[in-house]
Amino acid sequence: MPAGSFDAQRLFALMKKAGAEVLLASTRHNVRYLSGGYYYPLYVWDAHTRGTQYLSFLVIPADRLGEATLVGRPGEGEALQEAGLWLQRCQEASGIGTRPAALKAVELLKGLALDRGRIAVELPSLPADAFQVLVEGLPRAQLVDAVPILDALRAVKSAQEIQLLREATRRNLEAVEAVLTSGRNGETTAQLAGRVAREFGKRELHFLYALVCAGPGFFRIPSDRRHWRAGSLLHIDTGGMLEGYIAETCRMGCLGRPSALAERLLAACGELEQAVLPALRPGVPANEVQRRGDEFLRTHPLGSHGKLIAHGIGLVHHEDPVIGLRRTEPLEAGMVLSLEMEFLHPDAGHVKIEDMAAVTGSGGELLGPAGREWYLSVP
Amino acid sequence: MPAGSFDAQRLFALMKKAGAEVLLASTRHNVRYLSGGYYYPLYVWDAHTRGTQYLSFLVIPADRLGEATLVGRPGEGEALQEAGLWLQRCQEASGIGTRPAALKAVELLKGLALDRGRIAVELPSLPADAFQVLVEGLPRAQLVDAVPILDALRAVKSAQEIQLLREATRRNLEAVEAVLTSGRNGETTAQLAGRVAREFGKRELHFLYALVCAGPGFFRIPSDRRHWRAGSLLHIDTGGMLEGYIAETCRMGCLGRPSALAERLLAACGELEQAVLPALRPGVPANEVQRRGDEFLRTHPLGSHGKLIAHGIGLVHHEDPVIGLRRTEPLEAGMVLSLEMEFLHPDAGHVKIEDMAAVTGSGGELLGPAGREWYLSVP
Repeated sequence: MPAGSFDAQRLFALMKKAGAEVLLASTRHNVRYLSGGYYYPLYVWDAHTRGTQYLSFLVIPADRLGEATLVGRPGEGEALQEAGLWLQRCQEASGIGTRPAALKAVELLKGLALDRGRIAVELPSLPADAFQVLVEGLPRAQLVDAVPILDALRAVKSAQEIQLLREATRRNLEAVEAVLTSGRNGETTAQLAGRVAREFGKRELHFLYALVCAGPGFFRIPSDRRHWRAGSLLHIDTGGMLEGYIAETCRMGCLGRPSALAERLLAACGELEQAVLPALRPGVPANEVQRRGDEFLRTHPLGSHGKLIAHGIGLVHHEDPVIGLRRTEPLEAGMVLSLEMEFLHPDAGHVKIEDMAAVTGSGGELLGPAGREWYLSVP
Repeated sequence: MPAGSFDAQRLFALMKKAGAEVLLASTRHNVRYLSGGYYYPLYVWDAHTRGTQYLSFLVIPADRLGEATLVGRPGEGEALQEAGLWLQRCQEASGIGTRPAALKAVELLKGLALDRGRIAVELPSLPADAFQVLVEGLPRAQLVDAVPILDALRAVKSAQEIQLLREATRRNLEAVEAVLTSGRNGETTAQLAGRVAREFGKRELHFLYALVCAGPGFFRIPSDRRHWRAGSLLHIDTGGMLEGYIAETCRMGCLGRPSALAERLLAACGELEQAVLPALRPGVPANEVQRRGDEFLRTHPLGSHGKLIAHGIGLVHHEDPVIGLRRTEPLEAGMVLSLEMEFLHPDAGHVKIEDMAAVTGSGGELLGPAGREWYLSVP
């Protein structure tokens, strides 16, 4: 995740708004984001070890970036030095695990006189036993959730981050095209998902998931019991990760020729996308995106089967900005959205397109080609 | 993880010993292990989503396997049914996230009259906010750590699991050989680690980590600043995952010919392994493995530079059995150990071999060829 340094002023403003005097980031994606790419190399994908798991904290006091410190495992100081980042301070815990890391964090916070007031921790992922150590060790502190602060911080992407998302989108689409254009009659949806994983692997895109919907019907979880048959539609809705950044796409395939109805539904996905893209400009309230999509569907003859879902995406697959009719926060340049246009029609099946788009001064910029075409296989 | 069904009687005996009336498994690896391979397919690698993360609980009441229930996200019941496993009961939470899952678990436990007594949860990974919901919702219960129960349950592997570990070991070694025999003078350790990842990818082995030590010196974290030079040793110590099962190996390479001292150290690694392998039999106390290794080193001329580390391995990279001088628990047939034999010598560098071995009636059975050979590259 070499996507450059985060916006410290934005972080401190968000911490101030939340009343947090210090932030303790502990998830892989946030530690890497804030440090500029660092996480102890043994645990980048899996941290469980002997009755516990590896845990580290990136501790950032409000307005005092120079005092930011990584609380890590034994030997971690040397690893951090070698990485050559802005972050050099490291406090090593007495052992590897959740409780040793939390005990060392308590000691550090006391040393910094930050053991009272509001301390922001990642509550939905902080391990329960580490939480207990913090609660007991910091009786004068109030632990609040750091996730809204960090989600808001990450919502605006740098040019480097957008470039990574663009490249992830390119590889994702190339892989999905390879699968959809080589379909065989009777292939199971589990086999199709396995092929997506392999095509991602060839392109060094980390496979996260593939939902595969073989019509008729709307069931999308890969299965050994569901088959793609000649004449039927299929969609592949998939997520892949490049240096931590996630690209999600959905594309339509058909074994043979799609029906006229299916053609109309795919065209409507494209029109729905065109209806919302101009709203992806700085200063436009988030709910305007949803409003435009809903309005398009209200007036389209097939709109009662349709839906628009838009969500921020980046290091987390659904993140800020949140798009919904009640969300009035203005969009900002550099935000990245996934746009999901879909129709669930009882006769045609589940027609869906998902594209990645960045917010720019001239409206939404797709990070790959628009998904307006069918990928056809010969049955 | 199609490695077959777990030993329910062993689980219930372990729960009884811990006084736990109900178990709530929540980590990916334990939910998959207990269910027979199931985890919601969208979150197999990454569960973070919009301000929280996906969380499920596999709830198993002591001695009542028929009442085991998955607490999942909306729509999860249909996914579980499709998987066609022994586990069919599902309770769907009101939304996706840690708190909704915990609220639904509280409701389920109350319905089963299991809201008092000892409830085993995975404390080192249970999210703090879910923990708070459980504590508040179950005031008469005592939450205890489920990890020792689950680690002890998983310590004995089935033939299917050992076969997966054997296959993972084979792919791991093939990949490492490909890298070590194609070294180039001046390649960085970060480049070497990247090549290991790509060779794993080609073999559909999930890359977890590669520690790369280019002598002289003992620093092993992949770096852009450290280079493999003609005449110097290199070790690659790496972990890869196949259907959740982890194989760890370490192999030695050299750009050119290793020194006579290096040859002696590698030979000593092999002899050390041979000294401990016969102890990997059922009924032998765990500390006998360490004792034999330490005894070998005490009497070897280079032994003061040497170390034996042995640890259980499977779905978690260091798990039961724990090997150490104070551990007297008997080994059991089907346990799998990683054996790490290493010498850190100031003149030769860090010479290390790591092999995977299963406990059998006739002593330790290596799950791949012993690492006695050098992998040589032409400088």
